[in-house]
Amino acid sequence: MASWLPIPSKSHFSLANIPFGIISTSTEPTHRPAIAIGQHVLDLSAFAQNKGFSKLADFPVDQLKVFSQTTLNDFAALGRPVHRATRAYLQDIFRQETPYPEILKDNEALRKQALISIEDVQSHLPLSIGDYTDFFAGRNHAHTVGTLFRGAANALQPNYNHLPVAYHGRASSVVVSGTPLHRPWGQVLPNPQAKEPVFQPCARLDIELELGMFISKGNKLGAPVDVNNAEEYIFGYVLMNDWSARDIQQWDPWVVLADALEGFRGKGLENEVPPKKYLAEKREDSILDINLEVSITTAKGNKTKITQVSSQNLLWSWPQMIAHHSVSGCNLRTGDLLGSGTISGLEPGTQGSLLEQTMGGKQFVKLEGGEERKFIQDGDSITITGWSGTAEDGLVGFGECEGTIIAAIPRD
Amino acid sequence: MASWLPIPSKSHFSLANIPFGIISTSTEPTHRPAIAIGQHVLDLSAFAQNKGFSKLADFPVDQLKVFSQTTLNDFAALGRPVHRATRAYLQDIFRQETPYPEILKDNEALRKQALISIEDVQSHLPLSIGDYTDFFAGRNHAHTVGTLFRGAANALQPNYNHLPVAYHGRASSVVVSGTPLHRPWGQVLPNPQAKEPVFQPCARLDIELELGMFISKGNKLGAPVDVNNAEEYIFGYVLMNDWSARDIQQWDPWVVLADALEGFRGKGLENEVPPKKYLAEKREDSILDINLEVSITTAKGNKTKITQVSSQNLLWSWPQMIAHHSVSGCNLRTGDLLGSGTISGLEPGTQGSLLEQTMGGKQFVKLEGGEERKFIQDGDSITITGWSGTAEDGLVGFGECEGTIIAAIPRD
Repeated sequence: MASWLPIPSKSHFSLANIPFGIISTSTEPTHRPAIAIGQHVLDLSAFAQNKGFSKLADFPVDQLKVFSQTTLNDFAALGRPVHRATRAYLQDIFRQETPYPEILKDNEALRKQALISIEDVQSHLPLSIGDYTDFFAGRNHAHTVGTLFRGAANALQPNYNHLPVAYHGRASSVVVSGTPLHRPWGQVLPNPQAKEPVFQPCARLDIELELGMFISKGNKLGAPVDVNNAEEYIFGYVLMNDWSARDIQQWDPWVVLADALEGFRGKGLENEVPPKKYLAEKREDSILDINLEVSITTAKGNKTKITQVSSQNLLWSWPQMIAHHSVSGCNLRTGDLLGSGTISGLEPGTQGSLLEQTMGGKQFVKLEGGEERKFIQDGDSITITGWSGTAEDGLVGFGECEGTIIAAIPRD
Repeated sequence: MASWLPIPSKSHFSLANIPFGIISTSTEPTHRPAIAIGQHVLDLSAFAQNKGFSKLADFPVDQLKVFSQTTLNDFAALGRPVHRATRAYLQDIFRQETPYPEILKDNEALRKQALISIEDVQSHLPLSIGDYTDFFAGRNHAHTVGTLFRGAANALQPNYNHLPVAYHGRASSVVVSGTPLHRPWGQVLPNPQAKEPVFQPCARLDIELELGMFISKGNKLGAPVDVNNAEEYIFGYVLMNDWSARDIQQWDPWVVLADALEGFRGKGLENEVPPKKYLAEKREDSILDINLEVSITTAKGNKTKITQVSSQNLLWSWPQMIAHHSVSGCNLRTGDLLGSGTISGLEPGTQGSLLEQTMGGKQFVKLEGGEERKFIQDGDSITITGWSGTAEDGLVGFGECEGTIIAAIPRD
């Protein structure tokens, strides 16, 4: 799929992707929807106001106001068929042989207004999050960490293979890529034998490599979602760093639509326990296949890739998480965020947390320039990236999720 | 404090109270703010639009739009001094010898428009909730339940007396009093020795008597709240039933302002562990003193009061919960809901859950009409009520929080 707009072959934002986000610019500070394409973004507010969607039959005019909102919630709530049609239409708009050249390709005025260099935009949280639930679907991570804490015989809790375990997190603590974070304070036991906790800055600050998923349409309280229909409730995905001991989720600002990843699916980890009927999926390829990488850049400027792993290292799929989340009658709402839990392989260099890579803080991870780490130090910057596909067919990538830890706020 | 409006002496909504809520009526379905007073509500949208607040100097005209919103969030965000002035002004408006009789007492047109019988209004969720955190501050409850599960020697977890323990809950699952709820399905172990869980409707459905608190103004990410300034972050309180095994919070629709309970404070449970500095309060009376009652009404119509307990049965105060919640840098937002955890005494008839009253399901609670219960049955209705003060001085009460459990939704 070639475009009339120059798109670098290694860009995560190829014509095969079309991820959605919320932007502002220095000249127009209003938050508004956009898509990323190559080294540009298309301002969907300006595009919609200038009849950009006039050839899209599937998009009723009265719904165009979703593109003048400050979040993507209203667009997400329109549902999968509308997302699918919108993405396909925008691909048509940018295609080399676009059927509608008059809309943008040959419309210099609109190109000048709506097509902005990605370096000139500020990204913001793409959706207003109602609730945030973090699952624990990465069985390798669960097994390794469980072994560290409880020994190999009791590595997994008895319910682990029977249902997707999760905890509820705070929606307020989700921040966008690039936000620097202070090291947190907290009460900790100075040693396992200690009787008295001490109040101090966290000494074992860690990262957790995760995928995040946004709910498109919600379900009503008391009306569970069928696992085999759950894909209709998915809006899209983001990369996420669940700062551990910090309880803050940081993510990249572009939401890759569920449809963009439709071609990158496969099997996850084998579950020896047959699922209950409400968790039994008919299709066998509902685990996403995304290449994930974590790098650490120290204050000295040394950058080291510490993790390379496939997102197929999950035991539970997103449809299973949705079905289980709603089975007791719990309602999901547009904009709710679900986390996968830490994604890890079992080999060195494939684990999504330092806790695993250092065997619980017992050994160092070697970095470039002779540096080494057991946990995150002040000034360390973490970058997560991920993509599917090939440069030939166009990458479907997430861009980068970056965050730097700065010193704890002084307290008396 | 006598009023020109007849207020029954046992009304929870005396002139000493002035609780805030969100209402609609059959003739005007728009959700809008109101206060409850005796057997009436005052529609604050109509009151504000008709210059009702014109004598309130502390209320800038450009802020009056908070009373035409569909939730109380904007009013809550104005902060304690504005809530205090607004409540005092509304008390003046309704006082027998009101200094402003022309505003409402002698203004028949506005009385007809804005003063509505409480039986003619529908109540709604008063605030849009960002996040919901449920604490576990009722030490008697924690100790009794811990003894049931782990024995008396390990009743409390080691950190219990050091910090207010909490979990994050879902904001989506908070429903207003009167909403009927289906019994939930879930995976449970049929007996402690079983290896395989079964998927079935919950057999041990329970209630938990709690207080809920709403945040007024928020704090920024990374900027903890000082425990001795935390009261400024409190908007008001509601009664709450945390349906256990259901993960649904149900509450009464009227928010009693923090200021209305200012005269009802005292000591909580004694903590033998000295608090860390960030949890050390200067004042010694920061636990609220509210009379709480739980009644069960069976499908046969038998109503039995099963719990009578004071809210002073808490180890941690709301300021301590706020200080601990924010100490790691976590941001609270206007409309966030915090739960106290189950409030229980140690004597029979003072415990806020059936789990405690039945010693873990081992003995029956006797009800009127010869009925008995270990857990909640389909058709059972639970009513929670609570109040401070005396009929003589005017009760400061919450009204009632009611919910009925109906049968589980059939599944194949």
